[in-house]
Amino acid sequence: MASSYKMTYFDIRGLGEPIRYLLAYGGIEYEDKRIAFEEWPAMKNSTPYGKLPTVEIDGQLFHQSAAIARYIAKQLKLTGDDDVEAMMCDIVVDTFTDLRVQTSSWFREKDEAIKEKKRGPLLNEIVPFYMERFEKELEKNSGNFVKGKLTWADFYVAAVMEVIGDMCKENFLEKYPNLKALNEKISNIPQIKDWIQKRPITPF
Amino acid sequence: MASSYKMTYFDIRGLGEPIRYLLAYGGIEYEDKRIAFEEWPAMKNSTPYGKLPTVEIDGQLFHQSAAIARYIAKQLKLTGDDDVEAMMCDIVVDTFTDLRVQTSSWFREKDEAIKEKKRGPLLNEIVPFYMERFEKELEKNSGNFVKGKLTWADFYVAAVMEVIGDMCKENFLEKYPNLKALNEKISNIPQIKDWIQKRPITPF
Repeated sequence: MASSYKMTYFDIRGLGEPIRYLLAYGGIEYEDKRIAFEEWPAMKNSTPYGKLPTVEIDGQLFHQSAAIARYIAKQLKLTGDDDVEAMMCDIVVDTFTDLRVQTSSWFREKDEAIKEKKRGPLLNEIVPFYMERFEKELEKNSGNFVKGKLTWADFYVAAVMEVIGDMCKENFLEKYPNLKALNEKISNIPQIKDWIQKRPITPF
Repeated sequence: MASSYKMTYFDIRGLGEPIRYLLAYGGIEYEDKRIAFEEWPAMKNSTPYGKLPTVEIDGQLFHQSAAIARYIAKQLKLTGDDDVEAMMCDIVVDTFTDLRVQTSSWFREKDEAIKEKKRGPLLNEIVPFYMERFEKELEKNSGNFVKGKLTWADFYVAAVMEVIGDMCKENFLEKYPNLKALNEKISNIPQIKDWIQKRPITPF
């Protein structure tokens, strides 16, 4: 197993938080380097594809948060019990990413008129479309995403769901009981509870 | 290993082609169901998240093309030799997806004026940004993406690269010798060569 981890990301939860959850769950020590948005333009070109987070694992630099989270999940035996279950984890993560991408693209829209116009379809159509299907998945699988087992898909969704809610300024969890229960279950795992208590407070 | 595969997708290469390449490479028989765009609205709700492709594996229905491709790649030992190499494959695929998403979002733009305005930045900034970095990766890794070994990342990029070129109506390969060499290497694998010869001819 890798022995040194250094994450570089902005001072937000965002795409870094699923990785931080998994590292916390595994009791893996790591450097949680947070850079200010003002520092970013000067360091952008030093990253592999101009994006954060990056994670340095035993001195080697990687990007792509889901790929890194999957790697850590494997070390922690959180990818299900066989290749089909590993695929089911990946499907959940990629589908949640489809929703996240639409939310964050709306969130970053600079034209306030366009942003206001797109808020309705996002909140009334896109978000419920995904959330209702996630609710059914959780119901079918006894409260976890993959066959009632704790996998990295659960950590991923629990961490990113909060960020999506913060971006939309909506507490989705109140509307979706199974997602709420999943979020509480993950948040109450002692290592995650400890991390949530000590992590920096950020807007999203 | 799974014994029955049925893919459902539109009559295009698109996101289905990396899966078709991998199935061809593995000599895995499958049903290649292609639906007409006119049939789609009536069947959209019968898919897990309203998207194609879906692949039915031993009677179970899955979606998310990269997750499915990764699963097939595992069965064919195309995910590198350890967890770090498996992550490196995932990083390549997700990064290529970042480029593809920007290209297909431009391609699907219905407002011709906006489309024309965005063509320049896409072709002169976004595409070269990624392609130049991919060129360096290939150069560093003796022509394959991950440590000079044949992995599913190579199949994925070779298949999707052509589609991106067709969408932009640009033959990128002429500008990027390492990507061109990779594409030729994959296209000349006997099983892929055979598939390319017999596959339906589609615009992208």
